[in-house]
Amino acid sequence: DYSSLKPLIIGICGGDGIGPYISEHAKTVLENMLKDEIASGKVEIRVIDGLTIENRVKEMKAIPDDVLAEIKKCHVILKGPTTTPKKGDPWPNIESANVAMRKELDLFANVRPVKVPELGIDWMFYRENTEGSYALGSEGVDVTDDLGIDFCVATTQGSDRIIRLAFDYAKKNGINKVSVVTKANVVKTTDGKFLNIAAEVAKDYPEVEWDDWFIDIMTAKLIDPYRRSGFKVIVLPNLYGDIITDEAAQIQGGVGTAGSANVGKKYAMFEAIHGSAPRMVEEGRAQYADPCSMIKAVAMLMNHVGYVEEARKLEMALDVCVQFERKLKMTGRADGATGSQFADYILETVNDPN
Amino acid sequence: DYSSLKPLIIGICGGDGIGPYISEHAKTVLENMLKDEIASGKVEIRVIDGLTIENRVKEMKAIPDDVLAEIKKCHVILKGPTTTPKKGDPWPNIESANVAMRKELDLFANVRPVKVPELGIDWMFYRENTEGSYALGSEGVDVTDDLGIDFCVATTQGSDRIIRLAFDYAKKNGINKVSVVTKANVVKTTDGKFLNIAAEVAKDYPEVEWDDWFIDIMTAKLIDPYRRSGFKVIVLPNLYGDIITDEAAQIQGGVGTAGSANVGKKYAMFEAIHGSAPRMVEEGRAQYADPCSMIKAVAMLMNHVGYVEEARKLEMALDVCVQFERKLKMTGRADGATGSQFADYILETVNDPN
Ligand SMILES: CC(C)[C@H](C(=O)O)[C@@H](O)C(=O)O
Ligand SMILES: CC(C)[C@H](C(=O)O)[C@@H](O)C(=O)O
Repeated sequence: DYSSLKPLIIGICGGDGIGPYISEHAKTVLENMLKDEIASGKVEIRVIDGLTIENRVKEMKAIPDDVLAEIKKCHVILKGPTTTPKKGDPWPNIESANVAMRKELDLFANVRPVKVPELGIDWMFYRENTEGSYALGSEGVDVTDDLGIDFCVATTQGSDRIIRLAFDYAKKNGINKVSVVTKANVVKTTDGKFLNIAAEVAKDYPEVEWDDWFIDIMTAKLIDPYRRSGFKVIVLPNLYGDIITDEAAQIQGGVGTAGSANVGKKYAMFEAIHGSAPRMVEEGRAQYADPCSMIKAVAMLMNHVGYVEEARKLEMALDVCVQFERKLKMTGRADGATGSQFADYILETVNDPN
Repeated sequence: DYSSLKPLIIGICGGDGIGPYISEHAKTVLENMLKDEIASGKVEIRVIDGLTIENRVKEMKAIPDDVLAEIKKCHVILKGPTTTPKKGDPWPNIESANVAMRKELDLFANVRPVKVPELGIDWMFYRENTEGSYALGSEGVDVTDDLGIDFCVATTQGSDRIIRLAFDYAKKNGINKVSVVTKANVVKTTDGKFLNIAAEVAKDYPEVEWDDWFIDIMTAKLIDPYRRSGFKVIVLPNLYGDIITDEAAQIQGGVGTAGSANVGKKYAMFEAIHGSAPRMVEEGRAQYADPCSMIKAVAMLMNHVGYVEEARKLEMALDVCVQFERKLKMTGRADGATGSQFADYILETVNDPN
């Protein structure tokens, strides 16, 4: 319960590429919406510098020690996109900063809502966020020069807690359908465990129906006009969640329109679901980067810490602006509006929704 | 070169569930289209019984030994969908028959075309078909009751040959774009290898441009109206290929409309990309199962063995019938046409395209 904290500390990490730009706009929105709470000392906003690819390479750590220490002093985090080195890149093999933060803070649930009212779509994705192909993603083995092996991990406890969270959400919100997605016909041990545990957990929620799908056919059903609105709460292992939420976000208008909540027992972190777009920075277009997804993350953060009404207002303003943006291609292009103009427009709309 | 064979032996495995039904219709079409070749002894069609879940469970083998021996006497195989046991099912843990056949016959390339002319979509997917999460899919380890591990495998040679095949196809067909899809930012060893090898192979094809995408964002771009027609040839590791080709098939009209070629140096196997739909059989609706995807597989098979003109005619008839089917919901439902009626309709259309 965050309401007893004084102050509630919100940390903001800018990240790489367009990250610092869109984080700045998100911060403007957050500060405006919580200005009374900040003035009264109930909320403190802390900018945490140093979560950059340069520092990560220098320390050879996914999150530099001092940055991680600062992060752990906060209650919730707003994080800009970070760049992840991959084989062949000029950087050494360091784990993704997102992935590391999810594990370091034990943020086991990645919660991503996708809504397209005009298509009857109202999905809530519960992605397992610390295990699967991500647990040992940087610890694969080159057995020989010509043979590489990666590992995929599932624990009973790790599967149980995310599946239970999804069923809890369904039950609390009167939603009578949870869909479990795996590839248990091939990835038999870990996905098999996930599916078996789902069957066990489901017994504790007799009021909630559930079904199970393989990830391949699920990516088809999500865009099947006759089936897609039948899905409500979807729970799935890490990699499948990663894949399918980008597809889902595209249906909503693009990955730029979706935010993501990374939630654990102690900490929570909110972020955009898109990448750091280094090319925009190289080409001098960073000020045009679309901050929509980061502002969505702000709304999810406010909702999470108890500013439910403010979050609702911001969500509504975002809906209006995204519709507007879709038509006008306001942001993201050099002939459109800048991210800062978009943030101003959001705040105007919050204050005057008509 | 198949043209020197006398006879060219085509084996047909019915499979499980609706498999035997739709295979029968596909066989009718194949026999009709190649009737002169069959009469003259140039082509022989062999029905191979016994690739059923009951036999697989009895022998505790993904493919019973005698069935595999029969299969290996053929040059090419047409295969109906087979049921794969998964944890929690009443069957023991046996590998999928598809997956086993791909490995036993070293069918390293899974080739899946998807075309939607009215959307400008003309995609050719090259899915690696023997490695990745499939190589040891049934050999995961339950380290303890509460910790399971699966393995993902990539070899230099296995990655090289599929990527080279994709670039070859692009070059031969004057297509100047190959897209390589991985999750090399997380699954670093195996996907990293795949991506690095792609960069090497690309050097041998200076006339073909290439780009690389992560699988998550790729599932979004595939349905992005501004981007999707830009993709041409797409090459990717096994699991991502499995996932994304179902999504792609949905854009074309559903997984029921797509066939899949599994090709190796010595053998080739052609199949529907959908499952065995045991529920349709239980509910007594098997005769209504849509044989479209199996008939598509017949066209791919004929094209592969050199009956290019016949394949083209069948493809055209299928296009006509699928359009027709989409409007009338001819098959798949108890109030529609049966699979056998659909096959007859296809043959009529082949013989009289107007
Ligand atoms: C950047 C990448 C490591 C990350 C992931 O794979 O989880 C991203 O795609 C996401 O979905 O948050
Ligand atoms: C049935 C299943 C094992 C198979 C696969 O995962 O390859 C199927 O989905 C396919 O795409 O052919």
